[in-house]
Amino acid sequence: MTEANGTTELPKTCKAGVVVNEGPDFTVAVEDVPVPTPGPNDLLIKLNATGICYSDIHYMLNDLPMGSMSSYGVRSPGHEGAGVVVALGSNVTTWKVGDRAGIKPVYDCCFACELCWSGRESYCDAAPQIGLNFPGSYQQYVLSPARYTQRIPDGVDDFVAGPIMCSGSTIYCSLKEAGLRAGSWAVFPGAGGGVGHMGVQIAKAMGMRVVGIDGGEEKRELCMKLGCEAFVDFTKVEDVAAEVVRICDGKGAHGVFVTASSAPAYASAPGMLRISGKIMCIGIPPIGTAFAGADPLLLIGKNLTFSGTKVGSLLDTARALEFAARGQLKPIYEVFPVAKLPEAVAKLRSGKVAGRLVVDFNA
Amino acid sequence: MTEANGTTELPKTCKAGVVVNEGPDFTVAVEDVPVPTPGPNDLLIKLNATGICYSDIHYMLNDLPMGSMSSYGVRSPGHEGAGVVVALGSNVTTWKVGDRAGIKPVYDCCFACELCWSGRESYCDAAPQIGLNFPGSYQQYVLSPARYTQRIPDGVDDFVAGPIMCSGSTIYCSLKEAGLRAGSWAVFPGAGGGVGHMGVQIAKAMGMRVVGIDGGEEKRELCMKLGCEAFVDFTKVEDVAAEVVRICDGKGAHGVFVTASSAPAYASAPGMLRISGKIMCIGIPPIGTAFAGADPLLLIGKNLTFSGTKVGSLLDTARALEFAARGQLKPIYEVFPVAKLPEAVAKLRSGKVAGRLVVDFNA
Amino acid sequence: MTEANGTTELPKTCKAGVVVNEGPDFTVAVEDVPVPTPGPNDLLIKLNATGICYSDIHYMLNDLPMGSMSSYGVRSPGHEGAGVVVALGSNVTTWKVGDRAGIKPVYDCCFACELCWSGRESYCDAAPQIGLNFPGSYQQYVLSPARYTQRIPDGVDDFVAGPIMCSGSTIYCSLKEAGLRAGSWAVFPGAGGGVGHMGVQIAKAMGMRVVGIDGGEEKRELCMKLGCEAFVDFTKVEDVAAEVVRICDGKGAHGVFVTASSAPAYASAPGMLRISGKIMCIGIPPIGTAFAGADPLLLIGKNLTFSGTKVGSLLDTARALEFAARGQLKPIYEVFPVAKLPEAVAKLRSGKVAGRLVVDFNA
Amino acid sequence: MTEANGTTELPKTCKAGVVVNEGPDFTVAVEDVPVPTPGPNDLLIKLNATGICYSDIHYMLNDLPMGSMSSYGVRSPGHEGAGVVVALGSNVTTWKVGDRAGIKPVYDCCFACELCWSGRESYCDAAPQIGLNFPGSYQQYVLSPARYTQRIPDGVDDFVAGPIMCSGSTIYCSLKEAGLRAGSWAVFPGAGGGVGHMGVQIAKAMGMRVVGIDGGEEKRELCMKLGCEAFVDFTKVEDVAAEVVRICDGKGAHGVFVTASSAPAYASAPGMLRISGKIMCIGIPPIGTAFAGADPLLLIGKNLTFSGTKVGSLLDTARALEFAARGQLKPIYEVFPVAKLPEAVAKLRSGKVAGRLVVDFNA
Repeated sequence: MTEANGTTELPKTCKAGVVVNEGPDFTVAVEDVPVPTPGPNDLLIKLNATGICYSDIHYMLNDLPMGSMSSYGVRSPGHEGAGVVVALGSNVTTWKVGDRAGIKPVYDCCFACELCWSGRESYCDAAPQIGLNFPGSYQQYVLSPARYTQRIPDGVDDFVAGPIMCSGSTIYCSLKEAGLRAGSWAVFPGAGGGVGHMGVQIAKAMGMRVVGIDGGEEKRELCMKLGCEAFVDFTKVEDVAAEVVRICDGKGAHGVFVTASSAPAYASAPGMLRISGKIMCIGIPPIGTAFAGADPLLLIGKNLTFSGTKVGSLLDTARALEFAARGQLKPIYEVFPVAKLPEAVAKLRSGKVAGRLVVDFNA
Repeated sequence: MTEANGTTELPKTCKAGVVVNEGPDFTVAVEDVPVPTPGPNDLLIKLNATGICYSDIHYMLNDLPMGSMSSYGVRSPGHEGAGVVVALGSNVTTWKVGDRAGIKPVYDCCFACELCWSGRESYCDAAPQIGLNFPGSYQQYVLSPARYTQRIPDGVDDFVAGPIMCSGSTIYCSLKEAGLRAGSWAVFPGAGGGVGHMGVQIAKAMGMRVVGIDGGEEKRELCMKLGCEAFVDFTKVEDVAAEVVRICDGKGAHGVFVTASSAPAYASAPGMLRISGKIMCIGIPPIGTAFAGADPLLLIGKNLTFSGTKVGSLLDTARALEFAARGQLKPIYEVFPVAKLPEAVAKLRSGKVAGRLVVDFNA
Repeated sequence: MTEANGTTELPKTCKAGVVVNEGPDFTVAVEDVPVPTPGPNDLLIKLNATGICYSDIHYMLNDLPMGSMSSYGVRSPGHEGAGVVVALGSNVTTWKVGDRAGIKPVYDCCFACELCWSGRESYCDAAPQIGLNFPGSYQQYVLSPARYTQRIPDGVDDFVAGPIMCSGSTIYCSLKEAGLRAGSWAVFPGAGGGVGHMGVQIAKAMGMRVVGIDGGEEKRELCMKLGCEAFVDFTKVEDVAAEVVRICDGKGAHGVFVTASSAPAYASAPGMLRISGKIMCIGIPPIGTAFAGADPLLLIGKNLTFSGTKVGSLLDTARALEFAARGQLKPIYEVFPVAKLPEAVAKLRSGKVAGRLVVDFNA
Repeated sequence: MTEANGTTELPKTCKAGVVVNEGPDFTVAVEDVPVPTPGPNDLLIKLNATGICYSDIHYMLNDLPMGSMSSYGVRSPGHEGAGVVVALGSNVTTWKVGDRAGIKPVYDCCFACELCWSGRESYCDAAPQIGLNFPGSYQQYVLSPARYTQRIPDGVDDFVAGPIMCSGSTIYCSLKEAGLRAGSWAVFPGAGGGVGHMGVQIAKAMGMRVVGIDGGEEKRELCMKLGCEAFVDFTKVEDVAAEVVRICDGKGAHGVFVTASSAPAYASAPGMLRISGKIMCIGIPPIGTAFAGADPLLLIGKNLTFSGTKVGSLLDTARALEFAARGQLKPIYEVFPVAKLPEAVAKLRSGKVAGRLVVDFNA
């Protein structure tokens, strides 16, 4: 284990947001926890920032069918970290102390299955999740396998990089799989949200014509500023789908990227599309409350496609970061000092958030 | 108008299957109807065969939201015809009397929209349907626009060509859009049916590994003979999806082509797939009875896609006919003389049909 | 034949640029020629503008292996026209007098072959060229088949639309076929020329990072203004390929679009590319003077692709026009009154042209 | 290091074919060499078979611009090995002694670049070659990094697996990248050779219509037996390209896979193609003797593509092995006992080989 600079001693403890009383009544505390020691193939990363993602809340609520954090001995969620490598495991040759590094949701993957061999390693069956199976980015000093850690390019600061690790990567991957051409109409239900507002920017940078859907004047202003050509306020417009069709040449959109996590967002999407349109599923409503699909006749008659994608691969995430490095993707975020991490979690849980929430470990 | 051979007079009347009492209580009669006269851009085609398709029954039941046959002044459904050109409109230069010609569901299209310009003309908004908007292939002498009539290649007889005009074209189009590679696992719920049994053969000819799903020993034998590597009998196997996963390397199929028209076929499809699998929607259950889709989390977590396609383009249909010309696609059909066309319709309506039903106009 | 407005008489004659002494010593004159009468399926279009393309000069030189203009009884080249429909053939129902219409290089196509059925109708074997097989857009009143005439959208004036009919369509088609993603490096040898400067703009609008290659300060200024991120002046830089590689992350470009018509442009292209790079061939050097390709080992070792495309389809051209309608494509052009059409031709032939030359029929 | 079965001692030495007098006058000897000891991340593989590939001869001739074997301290070429794991490095957890394993040309790759992240790791800049940079499969006991060793599936014996490691993988990759549909015409110049005869079989299994080109009756018989629909004997047919066009519906092929390593094979390929045809470059003629390409006008006018690919990725190779496991790919090979390895090399160098040459280490 090589220490940073060879001169600074690593601290013995660090700040971490930890879950208390995992389950429906969970709370979050900030504690001092031991700085971990890297195994032979690991990096030890000192994070400057971590994003707060709704998946963290799911893990703390323990309401997804993936096992509980506590069953893995994990207390800190988090998977949107950005910082710098401060120590290396003994086998690590491809990173050096001082390199910038990011934490993305997938902790590692097997590198030995078809999915890993084809750039779809996010779906690898053997891939554990950081912040669930391993301590996550709510902990300032965190481990990450050298072979599966994201590099952060110049020109992207850590507050920007954090939210891109998950939300930015996810929406980039969805846009990539949709395969729309420049000049196509892309519609974002939830355009003003954490994922949606990044989608608007990337779609714009890909040359698409973007329509935002969300509620309220603040969201409208945000969306138009970020590059939407039109905005539909679902609190004011009765037939949102019809309005989208009207905007999109009277024919409908080429793609709808459902970044909202609600049943109505999914239900109204097919009606917004022209022939051969695509509904890309990103937002995750509570299980059993929503449906991504339609009557077969509708899919058949209009050649529609529903397709789901989750967080992108290492390469997808690198691409998303490149949009930021070129100045085309500027996540909107609110910064909380680490001591106020619990307030950040509470705010996200309340649903009153535009953009992303990011914790500053140095404040 | 040039007559066939310049020598044979065209008859004044011909046989036609016509609907009586359109609606839930319809019946079918065989009548003598006038042979139509081609307009300047039309072909007059003398059919030797027509397939009987379940869509015909929908039109006669008038249970689809597309207007009724009678509102268009049409009495004969049918869109799977095969025969020979016997007369040409005055402007027609690209066909000659004696050319073999087929009737497919789309009667004509606008040739002036993006869909027509990109080989997706089946979805053209301005495209009328033969057998609904225009007299269909239950009528022995039928008109078809010269610019949008299918050519039938050598080596494909009219009884084979008929069912390919709709069913064969449809399943080819679905297979094409699914884009699976040779060596992929393709599963066909409804494998022994009119569309499914053609899908099995084309998928096999594309190099896929094919699993058939259907009910009963007769279907099993048919499917295995047509090239299935495995068959799952839903009347015997409790968990059909699990069995498909087991067969497909324990990982699941790459694509499920739902040629059955039932809600359970759609509901069970996602569970048969591996990561990045595709559910292709072909079968049309009664409106409001089935759902093509799933909980968003399932699509997202497994990168699944639901996609619908209808009948193929002129080029898709030509491709489907080429599989037949190469001997790789041999529709199974039962022949009825024209006088027994009503029995054929009744049999299809009863649901007890393996393969397709074809009417012989010369018997 | 319906006349414009029902009120204005069509003139009997109109201005036309015609070739004199076809062959190496050709000259061009402006003459009064008869206004043609549309056949039953034709439009008569009154052009406001026509671009001057180097292909016109090839036709007048008669140095391509496609037969001579005179052998087809044609005196006016030209295939970049923009104007308005002033009369309709008796069968025409899809256009009306007053519609805006454009002339593109392909006069008509067969609508009955695989190429026409799949949106690649520019390559149809049976497709005649306007300005070679039929009188071209150097003639103010010109005929065009109703089924294969380009519509010009709102927001694109005729001086802009003209050059897009050929050059804009061509480079759009090449960019489409190259299939590069947003964020890729696209390099344009000949970036300041008639085709190249449109390529730079469309590539930029597609989200690519663009490098221009051309000679001189004027070209540099133009290219940087149009959206190039870097410019390489081949009159100053010794090793152009190495400089491109350096600019493109030290790895090389993703695509090189050879819009220059010179052997060195083709020869240097492979050296500019990273692994899996694409050389798209657009510029046409004199036959026998250049080579698009390389030693097989180079293509194999670097997974390189050489691919040629010609003018786009009707749909491709519509897409190119859409970039203009959105304000993302602004061809640079110099206007000549029709009386000075010969000077425009002479100027293009001399090679001293930045952007395109357009003739104004109303000046 | 775990030894096989825990019971059998590994030998101290093993047989190896080694180059003597590297360069134009090289010879090959069979010697006893030390059995290597695996490093912590390595497998020690006991080979049962190795293919002999023309690249081996290039390395021994030292006529490629990639450095010499001797400069890397390597005496044994070879990269088509198949055998069984007999010992594991201390860090290896994903393999066990007794697993079947194959040696493919790329020894390892960086797992940290875009190419490795996207399933194109064969092109990784940091990827060393086995048999050049590391001792190759002419040595019976050979090392391979655990993370980048090919698994051999059930149903594929070692004599079959060996040639697939390089030739089979290469031609599969080319066929995959060509992206032709089932029913397309695929032409193989060099159809009877080591790579070509595998291409014929895989193309056939993908549903293509295959035309073989080669010289002589023996080749004709082989090609027709392997699934060619037609064969063109270049020793008898004057205009090979014209004959191919004639066979392929009078329009030409969809793809030409140049597996021959000669200038005429490359020069004649474009003339065999229809519009939008693809020339896939596989065979490597001596540097500077051949050209993969054509006059730009030809590529442009016919929308042709030249594209090169080298050996496939780990996943491509797995796919190629799957064709063998399904019985669709049966390499033709001649077996030499290890003592006669020099004769095998001499025979290949003489050029008189149908199919592949394989050395049996147990004979």
